[in-house]
Amino acid sequence: MNIRFYNARILTMEEPIEVITGQLWVEGERILYVGSDAPEAEIASKIGQDVPVWDREIDCEGNLLMPGFKDAHAHSAMVLFRSLADDEPLQGWLEKRIFPVEGQMTGQDVYELTKMSVLEYLTSGVTAVFDMYLTPETIIDAYTECGMRNVQVSGINNFGPEPEVMEERFLKLNAKNSLSSYMLGAHAEYTCSMELLEKIAAMVQKYKVPFFAHNSETELEVKECFERYGMSPTQLFDKLGLYDFGGGGYHCIYLDDKDFEIFKKRGLTAVTNPASNLKLASGIAPISRFLSEGIPVAIGTDGAGSNNCLDMFREMFLVTGLAKYLDKDAASVDALEVLRMATVNGAKAMGLTDCDVLAEGKYADLIMIDMHQPNMQPINNIAKNIVYSGSKQNVKLTMINGKILYEDGRFDIGEDPEELYKKANAIAERFK
Amino acid sequence: MNIRFYNARILTMEEPIEVITGQLWVEGERILYVGSDAPEAEIASKIGQDVPVWDREIDCEGNLLMPGFKDAHAHSAMVLFRSLADDEPLQGWLEKRIFPVEGQMTGQDVYELTKMSVLEYLTSGVTAVFDMYLTPETIIDAYTECGMRNVQVSGINNFGPEPEVMEERFLKLNAKNSLSSYMLGAHAEYTCSMELLEKIAAMVQKYKVPFFAHNSETELEVKECFERYGMSPTQLFDKLGLYDFGGGGYHCIYLDDKDFEIFKKRGLTAVTNPASNLKLASGIAPISRFLSEGIPVAIGTDGAGSNNCLDMFREMFLVTGLAKYLDKDAASVDALEVLRMATVNGAKAMGLTDCDVLAEGKYADLIMIDMHQPNMQPINNIAKNIVYSGSKQNVKLTMINGKILYEDGRFDIGEDPEELYKKANAIAERFK
Repeated sequence: MNIRFYNARILTMEEPIEVITGQLWVEGERILYVGSDAPEAEIASKIGQDVPVWDREIDCEGNLLMPGFKDAHAHSAMVLFRSLADDEPLQGWLEKRIFPVEGQMTGQDVYELTKMSVLEYLTSGVTAVFDMYLTPETIIDAYTECGMRNVQVSGINNFGPEPEVMEERFLKLNAKNSLSSYMLGAHAEYTCSMELLEKIAAMVQKYKVPFFAHNSETELEVKECFERYGMSPTQLFDKLGLYDFGGGGYHCIYLDDKDFEIFKKRGLTAVTNPASNLKLASGIAPISRFLSEGIPVAIGTDGAGSNNCLDMFREMFLVTGLAKYLDKDAASVDALEVLRMATVNGAKAMGLTDCDVLAEGKYADLIMIDMHQPNMQPINNIAKNIVYSGSKQNVKLTMINGKILYEDGRFDIGEDPEELYKKANAIAERFK
Repeated sequence: MNIRFYNARILTMEEPIEVITGQLWVEGERILYVGSDAPEAEIASKIGQDVPVWDREIDCEGNLLMPGFKDAHAHSAMVLFRSLADDEPLQGWLEKRIFPVEGQMTGQDVYELTKMSVLEYLTSGVTAVFDMYLTPETIIDAYTECGMRNVQVSGINNFGPEPEVMEERFLKLNAKNSLSSYMLGAHAEYTCSMELLEKIAAMVQKYKVPFFAHNSETELEVKECFERYGMSPTQLFDKLGLYDFGGGGYHCIYLDDKDFEIFKKRGLTAVTNPASNLKLASGIAPISRFLSEGIPVAIGTDGAGSNNCLDMFREMFLVTGLAKYLDKDAASVDALEVLRMATVNGAKAMGLTDCDVLAEGKYADLIMIDMHQPNMQPINNIAKNIVYSGSKQNVKLTMINGKILYEDGRFDIGEDPEELYKKANAIAERFK
């Protein structure tokens, strides 16, 4: 499909961040042109190409085009657990409510639930997910059939899978299709034996690739790691060589000075998950310090079992709101930083540098923000307002890889939402 | 209009809180019936009335009816300041960016901006606003023309108005129409001289009515009050007799043991505004302690200048999320408590006990939550899920006083939203 968006405001997320007015042309999977609102022939001559034959021309009516959000940490199929067991202490919740069910979930369950999560991502303007869950094969199938970009990361731990399976997945799934990739990782220090961590490290060294894991999400996790190894999870991962080729951590709340040094030295990304960290009473990540040390921050929703929804707008507000609270400074963590985190930083962490900003040649992974909603008016500062006032209600259109998957509340992912809800409810019923 | 909702899930917010399935009948401004899904004739005989002639029958398709949210603290016309000056230190923001403009705003400006705020309230399922701003006469006009329920509270301070004007407004505006009322109040201790506070106290005693004001929003405010009077704002207000007939405070973050005692003794409501308190780095209110002491808590958005939007879903999540963080306990402040705060507690504080729950004889102030959105699926616990996963996107319909003002994204308030945006932008332009 060749699509021309015109009469648009555009936030390309290229630096310096500013809103322009103009057009955006999509040819197939990629952006052919983004820029000022000149006549078509003039634009065509400028980019040295003919005007494509348009399958569709979309009058944006002043609405805003921007890169889709990158949800840089999620367990998508955990939508099953949404509001299944809220307001419970963390440990009991995990051990009594979550783990027993996860032990019985099939690859088919995960497939159906992942498809349902796609609906929610699209309503929230998410165009790529950094997903860690049980059966990456069926997850990738689900995403691919829906047209959703995704990066799988291994959540290997003492309960599975075997390291050989992870390696096989890495080799097979990483290149499976243009929408999906696979990264090495582990669930967390506290769920992996030293023997297992050493095997993963050997694989990281063999393939010279980044490594991601839950890292320093709770005080207890860090305390117990110190008791076991005399050092923090970050220091342990680094000592084992897991961070030699970059990567990062999910949550990253309880870091010490040495940890910050390692993040800087290795170019690691701190993926923050503020809603989950509040709801599970884990804490608040030190966002301002990451920024002042030049450590990139990305944003994830975490799974809907803990947070309980896949809403990047809520996460964005929390990243800056909680930083302002923590720093006792209303000027802390500028909203524009938050927009970078939710788009370009997430893309970089996920290895998706081809869909980070709106520019010629990049994949057309974009969203349209409805400026005709009252929460966007009057128009004082559009970019900041997305962070401070934006909501899912403002997502008018979500396009991934050049295809419109969501528009005006309707989905085009090859599935009837009601059927996906029925299946999800049937799965929930089975585990009651 | 007589309207029959059927095929509905219903959360009446009567105790015990549970979701029923059934019908809800609206006759004129009030609820005629709410309950199980029996044949019409059977229901009619049960309530001892004939079946009304329906102007409209609405198939809810399993969507949820519940009382509208009560936004228990706002400065509605401050939508003008939305994202005008974010990420600035609080004091400079107020003194350089807000106060100078407010000094020049006309009653007509406030009228237009209040109308624009109504659009946003409706998208967020808010059916009544506890509003404090400059020109209550024009504010009430705006709300009344739109069909929005509102309670005005005086924000009197050293810069105006004269106490006689407040008394006149109290007498005239309080009974102006069935949608609007007016309460005595003051902006805050730090903006009122002792002489002024004493005059307000005399009026509270004269009319034996509740009193509301900003109270203990920042550490500085409380510290300076102690320096001036050797006591906290709560203690000062109580000493002056301002709290003799109840009322409450907005924000209520920095309270000491004596303050809690006064809140209990006087039956005061603590109105919490978590998003504003984060964004302006004010702090986190002690919600769990209010609950354990039996002090009612209500929820407000505050003005869009500070928070920056009128979104009760964001506030609800924050109330419990921040309490869990503060208490280091994932079981803290159950979501059902939050639903009470956002509905019945707000209504009680605002004197709107006739539109707190869905029950026969109550005003028909209600919303329909779209259960067919992915963030509501699978259906594990609807009531809790509204707090943890709900968003404005789920508000399918907002009815106030028996009239549907918002449905499927369309407004029916006698104004074209685009015209209101134009006016708001013109006002913003004038003050640039």
